[in-house]
Amino acid sequence: MKELEFTDGTQNSKSAIRNSQSPASRHDQKLEFILRTAARIFADKSYHSTSMRDISRATTVSLAGLYHYCKSKEELLFMIQDNCFGRVAERLEERLRDVTDPTIKLKIFIENHLSFFAANMAEMKVLSHEAQSLQGDLHAHVSGRKEKYTKLATRILREVHDEQHRNHPMNLTVATYALFGMMNWIYNWYDPKGKLKVHDLAQNLTQLFLEGFAPGIASDLASSRSLRNPSENLSIWRGERS
Amino acid sequence: MKELEFTDGTQNSKSAIRNSQSPASRHDQKLEFILRTAARIFADKSYHSTSMRDISRATTVSLAGLYHYCKSKEELLFMIQDNCFGRVAERLEERLRDVTDPTIKLKIFIENHLSFFAANMAEMKVLSHEAQSLQGDLHAHVSGRKEKYTKLATRILREVHDEQHRNHPMNLTVATYALFGMMNWIYNWYDPKGKLKVHDLAQNLTQLFLEGFAPGIASDLASSRSLRNPSENLSIWRGERS
Repeated sequence: MKELEFTDGTQNSKSAIRNSQSPASRHDQKLEFILRTAARIFADKSYHSTSMRDISRATTVSLAGLYHYCKSKEELLFMIQDNCFGRVAERLEERLRDVTDPTIKLKIFIENHLSFFAANMAEMKVLSHEAQSLQGDLHAHVSGRKEKYTKLATRILREVHDEQHRNHPMNLTVATYALFGMMNWIYNWYDPKGKLKVHDLAQNLTQLFLEGFAPGIASDLASSRSLRNPSENLSIWRGERS
Repeated sequence: MKELEFTDGTQNSKSAIRNSQSPASRHDQKLEFILRTAARIFADKSYHSTSMRDISRATTVSLAGLYHYCKSKEELLFMIQDNCFGRVAERLEERLRDVTDPTIKLKIFIENHLSFFAANMAEMKVLSHEAQSLQGDLHAHVSGRKEKYTKLATRILREVHDEQHRNHPMNLTVATYALFGMMNWIYNWYDPKGKLKVHDLAQNLTQLFLEGFAPGIASDLASSRSLRNPSENLSIWRGERS
């Protein structure tokens, strides 16, 4: 009966969607809940030390129930990694559409990566620590996504460099991995619920990197408008808010 | 009889040391070989997936023999981590003695960290991935060393900042971890045997970081003399050369 209290059309349509959920959508929500929980446990105690029984206990889904959603623990790990790279890249592609200025592209890349992973820290740790835990085709598929994403970063850095600092010597491979290192290391120290907001983290890291990579172009960064809508839900999973 | 061929006093004294090895020294060498091998296996397949039997097989030291050198697999992990932080910090302390210029201190810090860990990549991965695998006092001891080392980095950054850029806003916590992120991420991509020499890697990363952190002061870096003696053996273990 709660839906009837809404008078706002948007809310009504949201309620309508919630109430008319197809079995497929309910299946997806349950799967997301399982993946989210598995990511947290893999991040806490490593993939190899986690059993399907641990995941069953934490999700209160029976073992038989779990195998209805995935063939194996490895498939769970694959789905977490694949979802992460898929979502961060898809969101980036959307945000880069119609942007031509290389420096703005780089700022968007950094902000997109940091805000996405600050909202998905357990998944970030799993991506980093369990990159070698997948085998064969599953490993190749995730590696392909990661390589494509890394190449995009290098391409943007090359554009910034060519436009601004063609004569300033710079190893683009070192620069690309220095950038990923600065950003990805946050799972070791950053608390998204702490005093330092993710927007300020992104601004600090962008300024540090951009000033070092292309001296002079980051100086107006402090006064630039926020690149992200702060109310946006960035958790990879629908059941959580960033 | 080979020792008699030497005419150089230094070589003779080295041979003398080699030949008069005390049982304690032979014990240490064997322990180092076990730790080095264990670090490689932990890095390859994770601490939790490695058994003492795996280490016994790889070292060809019997299980009973292994327990003569360490009480448990956890003690092996502790000794690897403790040795690493101990050695990198001790070497740094030596190199910083009598240095007063904050920027030179920072350059030495970066070069020391990178050259040490480029020579100990498996250990670096183990430090990062298995930080949470130690418990109780062992964990507290290693965490204490790590904290002290991190605080030293922040102190040097504060000195550089105070001297050069007091009015340039900078979050020193973000800057410290950005620096560690750039440096520590190398275990994911850098090949010390590849084309890019560790000296050039250090120079690239120092320039990127320093220019971003304190604009203007890194410009003369390319022409600065090498801070490290390239023939120095930087492997944490005596049996390997960097």
